[in-house]
Amino acid sequence: MIGHEEHNSAPTATKRVLITGGAGQIAYALLPHLISGRVFGCQTRLIVHLLDIPGTENALRGVQMEIEDAASPVVVGLVTTTDLRTAFTGVDYAILLGGFPRLPGMERKELLAKNVEIITTHAAALDDHASRDVKVVVVANPANTLALVAKKRASSLPAENFSCLTRLDHDRLRGMVAKKLTSLRISSSIPECSAAITATQVRNVAIWGNHSSTQVPSAGQAQVELGGKWVSIHEVLQEKDAAWLHGQLVTSVQQRGAEILAARKLSSALSAASAISKHVRDWVHGTPEGEFVSMGVFVSKDCTYDIPEDIFFSFPVKCKGGQWKVVEGLSLSEETRRRVLSTVTELVEERDLALSLVGGASHL
Amino acid sequence: MIGHEEHNSAPTATKRVLITGGAGQIAYALLPHLISGRVFGCQTRLIVHLLDIPGTENALRGVQMEIEDAASPVVVGLVTTTDLRTAFTGVDYAILLGGFPRLPGMERKELLAKNVEIITTHAAALDDHASRDVKVVVVANPANTLALVAKKRASSLPAENFSCLTRLDHDRLRGMVAKKLTSLRISSSIPECSAAITATQVRNVAIWGNHSSTQVPSAGQAQVELGGKWVSIHEVLQEKDAAWLHGQLVTSVQQRGAEILAARKLSSALSAASAISKHVRDWVHGTPEGEFVSMGVFVSKDCTYDIPEDIFFSFPVKCKGGQWKVVEGLSLSEETRRRVLSTVTELVEERDLALSLVGGASHL
Repeated sequence: MIGHEEHNSAPTATKRVLITGGAGQIAYALLPHLISGRVFGCQTRLIVHLLDIPGTENALRGVQMEIEDAASPVVVGLVTTTDLRTAFTGVDYAILLGGFPRLPGMERKELLAKNVEIITTHAAALDDHASRDVKVVVVANPANTLALVAKKRASSLPAENFSCLTRLDHDRLRGMVAKKLTSLRISSSIPECSAAITATQVRNVAIWGNHSSTQVPSAGQAQVELGGKWVSIHEVLQEKDAAWLHGQLVTSVQQRGAEILAARKLSSALSAASAISKHVRDWVHGTPEGEFVSMGVFVSKDCTYDIPEDIFFSFPVKCKGGQWKVVEGLSLSEETRRRVLSTVTELVEERDLALSLVGGASHL
Repeated sequence: MIGHEEHNSAPTATKRVLITGGAGQIAYALLPHLISGRVFGCQTRLIVHLLDIPGTENALRGVQMEIEDAASPVVVGLVTTTDLRTAFTGVDYAILLGGFPRLPGMERKELLAKNVEIITTHAAALDDHASRDVKVVVVANPANTLALVAKKRASSLPAENFSCLTRLDHDRLRGMVAKKLTSLRISSSIPECSAAITATQVRNVAIWGNHSSTQVPSAGQAQVELGGKWVSIHEVLQEKDAAWLHGQLVTSVQQRGAEILAARKLSSALSAASAISKHVRDWVHGTPEGEFVSMGVFVSKDCTYDIPEDIFFSFPVKCKGGQWKVVEGLSLSEETRRRVLSTVTELVEERDLALSLVGGASHL
């Protein structure tokens, strides 16, 4: 079961992967996932592009040396740069971490303005220099709205190649459900079952909407693996726990980022990097049979959940052959629908504000 | 080739893995490797113990939340603590990162004294509370001498269960050789060979001696994978490059840590974590057929390389069934032998100083 990944030979392709904010803490946590071969597969050789702002050259050089020192089975090139054209030329994947951090006393609108400006510059470089098939993941905040701005500005690229990260919220939800089920010892009566439930024994939770505190974490359709079978979460929760599922759990996921920031005095990096690597892996190589994950994607006309067009919205999706597809036909509770309306409202307002900052969509 | 590691069920064992310095930057970089299932295998469930000093409780709580949020397929428990007994009880693996950092103006002896004190406390806790089969990796510096102190203090545990990390130096050496070979385009004439050589296409380098600037990196017996075959490095290097192999390359590896510290203003974490994860994986699951790696291990009576007993010395080793074995019969050049004598001298002096600080071995 232990992969000596170094011994997979016969590489079949070389891909260029760009990380913006390449000298930052999330990039530092993400790179080990990428260079291990786990995200793109050991048959895919990588040329890693790291972009950051002028002044970070030494830090970038340090990261470059450490990647060289990590004995990667897939890395065949490293480009560290503060030049946009160099960074974006020919890239097949663009993971956009780079953004301005919110400083004390800074207004939300002021932060949005700064990050819209950054993402617009990056999107222009994508439009001009990236592979025509480039897949884009926006992580910088506000991620959904920045993904929308990027998609509009990089108008020569297909809308479905843009996404924003909500997998972190998705995996937080799985982890919290697993912890709850472990505490309830729901599996202790099942032969050959450990009392502990791992996060990957919970699947098909979903995050709806904005990657913000209005997000709608939903675990009503979750399944739990017990003794080798996937069963509905409602089969293992008692009525009193169902109240937790639709109440405290939702709030805990919405506030998790703030809770970690308060404890670490730094935002999430380890868990964000884990989520990014899974987002990309599943997008590129497909979601496992029977499982869906959450991704923020562009809402088009034929959306079945009555979500308005022209925003990036997190949905449960399945991926296959490098394409995502929204999972249709899930039934949402009245409470969940009410929450969805609220996150939609926020996204529409955020979009209108962002577009006004750049002088309207026609200026993108 | 992409491992949906979440779908490996039927766990066979639960192991407790302790990291000291659990709130630090190397622990933060190491944890993703451990919780992914890549180090111990997806059949082994993990209870992760994180120990750090009082005052780090919030940081530890932040790390704990992030591990919960990273959807690990193997983690079934987390113990974050500042209490030694809680930290060490029942652990099967102990990765000892915790040590005092060298502060400006601090004498080398002063630093040694502080870290000998820390490691002695931790070794006592290992002796009293850990599994009788615990495998120990010392990373805190000076790693070789601290491993010796730990082995002496934890006298109820087998000497061969102690090791210190030199895999980072080993992998730095592989990376530098790969980069050189890529620059020489040595593979460009071979059909179906990329011009770029990855670090894992270089094997059987070795680090001899102390994890310090006296270490002896040796690539004379290295092999390179070209077109699916492993060939001697001497078949691909010209005479002028051979001078590089025994000269500049050695110095570059010895000084790499300092170079990264200067660039990052922080010591290596990403690459150190990568090396630790491979050290443990290979120790536990065996080195690949035909390959040896470097580990710092206790020198016993029957050492064939004329290294004096009673120090921890980095050797080329092969691992199988959870046991390491020094690779015998490698021929060392005159120059390498001279360098080995020098690192031996340093290790003996470091040992004598460390033991004098604790009042001699009989006080351990």
